[in-house]
Amino acid sequence: MKLLITGGAGFVGSRLARSLLTQGSLGGQKIDKLVIADQYAPPDFLLKDPRVEARTAPLLAQCATLHEDRFDGVFHLASAVSGECEDDFDLGMRSNLDTTRALLDALKRAGNKPRFVFSSSIAVFGPDPAHPMPDIVTDETLAMPQTSYGTHKLMCELLIADYTRKCYVDGRSARLMTVTVRPGTPNGAASSFFSGIIREPLAGKVAICPVPDTVSHPLSSASLTVQGLIAVYAASREEFLGRSGINLPALNVTVKEMLEALEAVAGPKARSLVKFEFDERIANIVSNWPKGAASKRAHRLGLHPAKNFASIIEEYIQEL
Amino acid sequence: MKLLITGGAGFVGSRLARSLLTQGSLGGQKIDKLVIADQYAPPDFLLKDPRVEARTAPLLAQCATLHEDRFDGVFHLASAVSGECEDDFDLGMRSNLDTTRALLDALKRAGNKPRFVFSSSIAVFGPDPAHPMPDIVTDETLAMPQTSYGTHKLMCELLIADYTRKCYVDGRSARLMTVTVRPGTPNGAASSFFSGIIREPLAGKVAICPVPDTVSHPLSSASLTVQGLIAVYAASREEFLGRSGINLPALNVTVKEMLEALEAVAGPKARSLVKFEFDERIANIVSNWPKGAASKRAHRLGLHPAKNFASIIEEYIQEL
Repeated sequence: MKLLITGGAGFVGSRLARSLLTQGSLGGQKIDKLVIADQYAPPDFLLKDPRVEARTAPLLAQCATLHEDRFDGVFHLASAVSGECEDDFDLGMRSNLDTTRALLDALKRAGNKPRFVFSSSIAVFGPDPAHPMPDIVTDETLAMPQTSYGTHKLMCELLIADYTRKCYVDGRSARLMTVTVRPGTPNGAASSFFSGIIREPLAGKVAICPVPDTVSHPLSSASLTVQGLIAVYAASREEFLGRSGINLPALNVTVKEMLEALEAVAGPKARSLVKFEFDERIANIVSNWPKGAASKRAHRLGLHPAKNFASIIEEYIQEL
Repeated sequence: MKLLITGGAGFVGSRLARSLLTQGSLGGQKIDKLVIADQYAPPDFLLKDPRVEARTAPLLAQCATLHEDRFDGVFHLASAVSGECEDDFDLGMRSNLDTTRALLDALKRAGNKPRFVFSSSIAVFGPDPAHPMPDIVTDETLAMPQTSYGTHKLMCELLIADYTRKCYVDGRSARLMTVTVRPGTPNGAASSFFSGIIREPLAGKVAICPVPDTVSHPLSSASLTVQGLIAVYAASREEFLGRSGINLPALNVTVKEMLEALEAVAGPKARSLVKFEFDERIANIVSNWPKGAASKRAHRLGLHPAKNFASIIEEYIQEL
């Protein structure tokens, strides 16, 4: 079978690619070819696999000829992140909405109804003055995004549901929780600090936490997120149940609990490297996010959250 | 002030234009100019008003220069209807999604943050296997459209909420109930028969009802719908409450109750002209629509449904 991962050079995408190549098959079919479409080149460990073909260019431009591939399956992870979309409205619309639509149209044109997994986001949820948001959002919570990023993700969920209803693709939208611990440097996502406050202290560096330690948030690890995306792909339509998006499993923790886990794993000195400097812009965005998530439909697919935040830190250390 | 009505030559649009011209002002401001953008020419009673400027061309093409007008307010009613969107997927995307986005971008470019009322639809609601739909949908019901038309309307609601959050427009989405009794000939909407089964018998003609008489549906009259759109425009943001869409008031009636009202108003002979011929395509679409709607936020704006279906028939007869 022939698979496509958009955003396949990124943090989650490259780990998804590695997992798929390691398992060698998907839904009982052998993976012959894995195309990684990304504006950046994938890491070497992917490039050296003979099954991998890297297409390094903006995805929107790539969509013009993508119907020729007739992919059996697609994981669509490419996206501009929340901070970028707030800073540059047009870039967000182009990267998230236009690109997803062009991709769907290419797959529609291919005509072979590929399976299609979309990485949506917990950011689809938000409080509207007319609709107070519950502390714990469920698969059935009315989503009312309060960022452009969340708006695009929800619009794409709806688009994918309709392309699926019309049998152009077999689409499934999975809302990713905030994935920690991201390696490397902070990205433009407002949620970037959720990784920074663990990653930097573990490297002996000071990290700034822009929100109070009482902030609670639904988190997941990279490996559990990859496992979730693969399970959503592998599910039958009956198992997936419906065409609306599902929440992937979340560990709902406060910043304080995160730092306690950091201390338990890496000692008090690591924890003392986290300084609190309130950032109103970040705090405003985060205050509109859910404090936690429940994931009934994901549990039906056999998926579960991390057992505690220490295990998420340990996964990160192990990978380092 | 300078207003734009897209779809202003249509059934609801032309009546909205007439009401606005008759009242002469909107939100305390005198209406100096009313632009009617529609692919069809508006009726004569509008064309002969010196305040009216008709722009008769596809709206998408008109959007390229629309920023030059700097409209104070916009009622966006132009839309491909549900049947058309099911028959021609690309036409639906272009007419509903692309056009609304181009219109919003023109208003954003104008830079004067016009007030913007969007005619969304009860068709945003639908049952998903994962989310059973309540019989009576409220402002807080999770919308999961089961038609392309409903999908576009909900995507546009989200787009408008985000353009509003960014202060590009002051947008409000009002979900129209099925408006009866439409004069003229059947249109491509799957809901067209809700008018046909009253209009045709009143004209002495046979009408086909494609669904059983137990079907229940949320209806409104043309005048109440126009009144709703104007109230949504005139409301302050605090009165409107939030950026999510609201249900306009609905009279929830069964086909049987509609026919009983027809008999009460026009006699048993009129009623006997309604023949039942089950149409699976129409019935399938309609079966995914709500049986009724509640409209708490619209009530807060002083809006109420028709008191009974006979009054809706009488409004139609009076206008004839």
